Amino acid sequence: MIRLFDYFRSSASYRVRIGLNLKRVEYERVDIPLLEGTQRGADNLARNPQGFVPTLEIDGHQLTQSLAILDYLDARFPEPAFLPADPARRARALAQALLIACDIHPLNNLRVLGYLKDKLGADQDTRDDWYRHWIREGFAALERMAEGSGRYLGGDDPGLADICLVPQMFNARRFRLDLGAFPTLVRIDSALQDLEPFAAAHPDRVQA
Amino acid sequence: MIRLFDYFRSSASYRVRIGLNLKRVEYERVDIPLLEGTQRGADNLARNPQGFVPTLEIDGHQLTQSLAILDYLDARFPEPAFLPADPARRARALAQALLIACDIHPLNNLRVLGYLKDKLGADQDTRDDWYRHWIREGFAALERMAEGSGRYLGGDDPGLADICLVPQMFNARRFRLDLGAFPTLVRIDSALQDLEPFAAAHPDRVQA
Repeated sequence: MIRLFDYFRSSASYRVRIGLNLKRVEYERVDIPLLEGTQRGADNLARNPQGFVPTLEIDGHQLTQSLAILDYLDARFPEPAFLPADPARRARALAQALLIACDIHPLNNLRVLGYLKDKLGADQDTRDDWYRHWIREGFAALERMAEGSGRYLGGDDPGLADICLVPQMFNARRFRLDLGAFPTLVRIDSALQDLEPFAAAHPDRVQA
Repeated sequence: MIRLFDYFRSSASYRVRIGLNLKRVEYERVDIPLLEGTQRGADNLARNPQGFVPTLEIDGHQLTQSLAILDYLDARFPEPAFLPADPARRARALAQALLIACDIHPLNNLRVLGYLKDKLGADQDTRDDWYRHWIREGFAALERMAEGSGRYLGGDDPGLADICLVPQMFNARRFRLDLGAFPTLVRIDSALQDLEPFAAAHPDRVQA
């Protein structure tokens, strides 16, 4: 049995849920309620040394870090491929995914927002501005990279960058970021949300 | 001609220099002085939509995001491989690399330290505490993951996680982080620095 230890609103978990759905892999969800601190308990630390979600239990392994998990799934279940075979297109797709996974998402993690509040005394507005700032910076670059994309960032089929885009868009909307400057990303996100593997991974569907 | 647009002290650039050296690839360095803001100029934005370094010009492409560049190099120049062939070992190595590349390094980027100073009014001590905090958090998890490693994080040969470790250790020392709690990482970093591909990529060697 494949088990995903996740949290409905965690971006990195959301990515892995989309990936599992795209590969048509059945799995069981185990909820790790981040707001209660369960992720830092001994049980979760034993499977995830960072005390994070997600962790994927598969083939007798406990895998961490969403992009490493998606890489494993892509090799284990080759169809549909998450990345193009052409080396330059592959590098571009990876760069788009990493732009989100390295340069937007970690800056807006719960632990970072907690540090801003507790150690720097940043109030809600200051934290919300911070949150939107890093999405805006990243999306501005991603929008330029995405111009000339096909239906999806991945072209005719959704790929790794699309898997990262949808959860980040969800966060952007949750924090009321004005998306007017990112028409290509909005169009692609909308097309992706029409796909069942993406829709079924949405936090609202998972929590229900 | 392969050209690397980089900055001597940028962690992500340092990673790519190590990668190129491990693959024994000759390249030309083009300096992008971050402290002067050159990275946000039109020339650099044309090659790197995020206005970051590094960018690698190779085979007629301009590649961005250090881990995407290293992935391209690994396919283009297969020996020595940056990642193990075994899927579970590959996933573990990727997770270690991503721990550094996503969960430590982006939090301590110049642009983030600048935001803390300019928008949140954080003084030097507060910013230094921030810097050390995220390395400490990440290294604590990486130390646990690294126990039982061989000579290097990659085993008998250095791999992708080692390529990420050395620049991060350089940053940790530059900000005077107490490394006493990370004996495995210190041992591995020391072994890595004895290797010429790592030594030749060091900021002091590049700047000279």
